Amino acid sequence: MQILVQKFGGTSVATLERMEKVRDKVLNGLQRADRIIVVLSARAGDTNNLLALAGQWSPTPDKAECDVLVSTGEQVSISLFTMLLKDMGIRARSLLGSQIPIVTDDSFGCARIRAINSEALRGWLEQYDILVVAGFQGCTEDKRVTTLGRGGSDTSAVALAAALGSVECEIYTDVNGVYTTDPNICSTARKIDRIAYNEMLEMSSMGAKVLHIRSVEFAQKYKVAVRVRSTFDDDPGTLVTQEDSSMEALLVSGIAYDKDQARVTLHDVLDVPGVAAAVFCPLSEKDVLVDMIVQNTSLDGHTDITFTISRRDLQQTLGIMAEISPKIGMSKVVHDVNVAKVSVIGVGIRNHSGVAARAFAALTQEGINILMISTSEIKITILIQEKYVELAVRILHDTFGLDWT
Amino acid sequence: MQILVQKFGGTSVATLERMEKVRDKVLNGLQRADRIIVVLSARAGDTNNLLALAGQWSPTPDKAECDVLVSTGEQVSISLFTMLLKDMGIRARSLLGSQIPIVTDDSFGCARIRAINSEALRGWLEQYDILVVAGFQGCTEDKRVTTLGRGGSDTSAVALAAALGSVECEIYTDVNGVYTTDPNICSTARKIDRIAYNEMLEMSSMGAKVLHIRSVEFAQKYKVAVRVRSTFDDDPGTLVTQEDSSMEALLVSGIAYDKDQARVTLHDVLDVPGVAAAVFCPLSEKDVLVDMIVQNTSLDGHTDITFTISRRDLQQTLGIMAEISPKIGMSKVVHDVNVAKVSVIGVGIRNHSGVAARAFAALTQEGINILMISTSEIKITILIQEKYVELAVRILHDTFGLDWT
Repeated sequence: MQILVQKFGGTSVATLERMEKVRDKVLNGLQRADRIIVVLSARAGDTNNLLALAGQWSPTPDKAECDVLVSTGEQVSISLFTMLLKDMGIRARSLLGSQIPIVTDDSFGCARIRAINSEALRGWLEQYDILVVAGFQGCTEDKRVTTLGRGGSDTSAVALAAALGSVECEIYTDVNGVYTTDPNICSTARKIDRIAYNEMLEMSSMGAKVLHIRSVEFAQKYKVAVRVRSTFDDDPGTLVTQEDSSMEALLVSGIAYDKDQARVTLHDVLDVPGVAAAVFCPLSEKDVLVDMIVQNTSLDGHTDITFTISRRDLQQTLGIMAEISPKIGMSKVVHDVNVAKVSVIGVGIRNHSGVAARAFAALTQEGINILMISTSEIKITILIQEKYVELAVRILHDTFGLDWT
Repeated sequence: MQILVQKFGGTSVATLERMEKVRDKVLNGLQRADRIIVVLSARAGDTNNLLALAGQWSPTPDKAECDVLVSTGEQVSISLFTMLLKDMGIRARSLLGSQIPIVTDDSFGCARIRAINSEALRGWLEQYDILVVAGFQGCTEDKRVTTLGRGGSDTSAVALAAALGSVECEIYTDVNGVYTTDPNICSTARKIDRIAYNEMLEMSSMGAKVLHIRSVEFAQKYKVAVRVRSTFDDDPGTLVTQEDSSMEALLVSGIAYDKDQARVTLHDVLDVPGVAAAVFCPLSEKDVLVDMIVQNTSLDGHTDITFTISRRDLQQTLGIMAEISPKIGMSKVVHDVNVAKVSVIGVGIRNHSGVAARAFAALTQEGINILMISTSEIKITILIQEKYVELAVRILHDTFGLDWT
């Protein structure tokens, strides 16, 4: 029995007319597979409205009860959608996270999936051609309702595909795939047909947020092929899958960028063991996400530490640095919010020398000063002044020939 | 461990301010009992809005999916209410029908409760002081969501009280009890302190719809004392309980009426076996509820059959009568919509002769013509012209001394 998982987001199920489009996609899917598992998000706006309601009832709503409340959003969309299928005489039923069950830990509001009862699902697949599953939700071992956090419906879909050994998991959204860079700032941006999980992870975390990052990790771990495509056209979209040799032939897959960056430099920090921990542990405790970190080799027993954070965390970060200053013996703290990050991503990078050098040369030629550099196996990240971001993206896109078909 | 069940209807939980009043009632209850089970309806309007949504999606929404949709109404109210309790540091949690579970049959939209897992409830009552349970909903043996139909939250509350051997089940509503008759038409109407289940059943079915009729049947079957009282004052309300000798001392408990009546008379019907079935089976198949039925003794092999129905069913009923006319050989069909029903109710009626005679005499004295009579053990029902209803109610209320304190 060939099973296809199809996930549709909140904008795709927002109205009756859009749900009818979704129904057409699902009926089309039924011609390509024996059975369909449809995973739906709450209708656009519903989740935010429910969270706002909770906020009226309590300044700090109980997290477990908040999940009971918010999970009604998907419950509404799956029941409405299944009505459409039943009206066509299709053998279908809705399934809540707790009915399958999709068992999670008890981190209410951001639970992680632990197990899916695939035996029960296979039983229902004998009786029904289409199962309509609520995304974003599950339940604890003792049946309390949980939600998976923002973007969790993508994770639900991939996890269901993994549990059932589904050939492919289709994630329908309002764009028709993953692009080599943002088409809004680079007119030659091109849709990518195939992309490796690692590349996709680097793209997601940089703001090319077509797929929720946890769903990509899940897909990579369980080797689920994920196809990102649009509810509103018939384009085959982008396949996110395991690396293969054809991908490695391509040096670079995409250029990502992120303008939400603030840079903080700690000057003349004592170069003794435990200093990095003294700086970054207090930030982590306050949920400040640190992005790039650079520490140069020490010359005279002192060194400079530079890191970047989200701009909204800047004031809190400067406060924490003032507190810890005596412990790490620095001379001064300097910060800059007019910075942005550009990344060159590709699995080909690890097998080809000189990619970084080519990127630096191209930027230098246009007079763009490089403020920080950080590299990983498949990514080169460069911090520059914010005003150069669009230019830098276009230069790098061109340098690595991403507009070639 | 003394357990008190308290049920609050949709108007009592419609807004944050009202929910705060409900919280006060529940905290007050916690001073009278060791543990509280709070049963909530959906916020006023929510259930109707969800049904309207289903109606937009489908002219005949799938009943099982409709229950998945509509049950979100109570899910919202129990989670919001539990947030309020948690904010006060109270050990509380919400429970969906399917979490307990409250097991029902699979008559989606009007399911009947089959069993309640009282062992699980007792387990939670060890951990929590207050359990906030979604009324109106349950699930089938195989965990599909069901709803109990209109007024089902009353039934949920009584069933929970029965399952836990609760001392009392308090049903909070927007009136402070059951009255001897409608105070809007009889200024001397008086609140009843105690009323027998049978009397309450006759009152409910006549439009004095303070309690859902099924919940009273349930309470009677499992001997649960139900107290009807107001969310908005401290009146002790009305206790609905088993008959006792003090009740029988009262001849009559209340006067009910119903203006939604249409009378249909079939003249000169053949008086042969099977005629009544030929008339009433087709009506039942079309869900026409027949209320009073009177058939006189036959004189010449022909008889007249008269019955009353809801006015909205009149046209359909006349159509059906025309269809079956050849089978039952009647001479003509006469109907009248300007009729109404007045009932005298009391467990004392069965032990006292002459109650009916007193009622008829009182009406006759005021020139009110009696169109039909039907009697049961504890009720005398009289059909009169609609214009006399208010007068008849006041006369009967006075005749049986219901304004006495």
